[in-house]
Amino acid sequence: MSIGNGAADRRYRRVGVLGGMGPLATQAFYGELIRATEAESDQDHIPVVVDADPSISDRTAFLLGAGADPRPAIMAAARRLELAGAELLVMPCNTAHAFEDELRQTIAVPLVPWVDTVSDAIAGHGSAPVAILATTGTLRAAMYQRALAQRDVATLVPGDREQEQVMSVVYGVKRGEFGVRLRQRLLEVAETMAGAGARSLLLACTELPLAVPASDGRWPVAVWDPAPLVARRVVVEAGGRLRRL
Amino acid sequence: MSIGNGAADRRYRRVGVLGGMGPLATQAFYGELIRATEAESDQDHIPVVVDADPSISDRTAFLLGAGADPRPAIMAAARRLELAGAELLVMPCNTAHAFEDELRQTIAVPLVPWVDTVSDAIAGHGSAPVAILATTGTLRAAMYQRALAQRDVATLVPGDREQEQVMSVVYGVKRGEFGVRLRQRLLEVAETMAGAGARSLLLACTELPLAVPASDGRWPVAVWDPAPLVARRVVVEAGGRLRRL
Repeated sequence: MSIGNGAADRRYRRVGVLGGMGPLATQAFYGELIRATEAESDQDHIPVVVDADPSISDRTAFLLGAGADPRPAIMAAARRLELAGAELLVMPCNTAHAFEDELRQTIAVPLVPWVDTVSDAIAGHGSAPVAILATTGTLRAAMYQRALAQRDVATLVPGDREQEQVMSVVYGVKRGEFGVRLRQRLLEVAETMAGAGARSLLLACTELPLAVPASDGRWPVAVWDPAPLVARRVVVEAGGRLRRL
Repeated sequence: MSIGNGAADRRYRRVGVLGGMGPLATQAFYGELIRATEAESDQDHIPVVVDADPSISDRTAFLLGAGADPRPAIMAAARRLELAGAELLVMPCNTAHAFEDELRQTIAVPLVPWVDTVSDAIAGHGSAPVAILATTGTLRAAMYQRALAQRDVATLVPGDREQEQVMSVVYGVKRGEFGVRLRQRLLEVAETMAGAGARSLLLACTELPLAVPASDGRWPVAVWDPAPLVARRVVVEAGGRLRRL
């Protein structure tokens, strides 16, 4: 069933995208999977099932002890993806990776390691200080601080005022807000972090590159966007052909 | 499970998107679903499962008697979506609607009527001649010619040379080609059809608005893009809140 007729001898693994956190980030991640694939026709693309259940409770609110538990809905989505034939899962939400270990225990298929993939890519470029721009939930769970410290990369996190700015951008994108002021707010935090010694910025919330793409010329220092990094790994693991960078 | 915490009393129907024909069009259609929804947070969005199996054989090749049968893979995708909890299906590929009746007989859940939704919208604006820009498979199956004739809307289709141009744009987009020449080719066909009396153009292949969006100022006459029209119907049928136009 997964044999493409454009590439009759290829056997792809069906990729399950555990999404909806938020929907726009999930849609953008699916776009990264398509762009990461070298394809001459539809049939050269990897098979994908996206499960986007936007009702999954707010991850940050829960991690801060102030909201409903999102884990049951995340586990249910994972099971639906397995029923739909997913042979490999990926979850385009940084914050939800606070529950990565539990998720792995629930599913029979492998989960592509989001935080490790991103951290490996960063560590491959040296150990200069990276500022982590992420939800307060992600910073509290400290996945990136830990993974980068293990790889001898120094990290910085925003102060309270800047962190509030970051969160207002995250929730702004979720509301479908993409104005100049939203973008300006994120770029201001970036300037502050660069001034504090960050040599690069990790956009460790899928909503942030939707506000200001990593390719934007206004970032004061280099920027890491996890989605394309993880997408390339997914395409390889699914048996697709990787587009040359 | 589908109750959003941002809208605790809403009951959404989970939408299954039968996609992969091609992947980029599927991704764009998911974007239309998100944009069609009035949302203040993730939890206001409708739940969606996208099944993109790009190995589904070329629809036009089969309809012209020159390729493998895509129907088994389409029916298999529909069944996977039902297993994944879809309560409503939509198929963002115009050509595949040549198999709409067979698909309805295979599935237990409703399929949103793509061709009828688009044709109703067009007929609501009068009966002036519409040029159908579509795959040769769609034109051969004549779904739009029939649906529009039933609604007293006159239709035009391109001549052989122009139809070849349209097909080269469709396959160009599927190859990830988005150059100026590709766009120019589609706009030239549009000019020819306008010169032949078309008062509007129906972009009845999901790849065409990816080459030149309906909002592009260079179209010589008004343009119909099915995806946002169908997306709005899907959001309503799924119980979502429709964003005001």
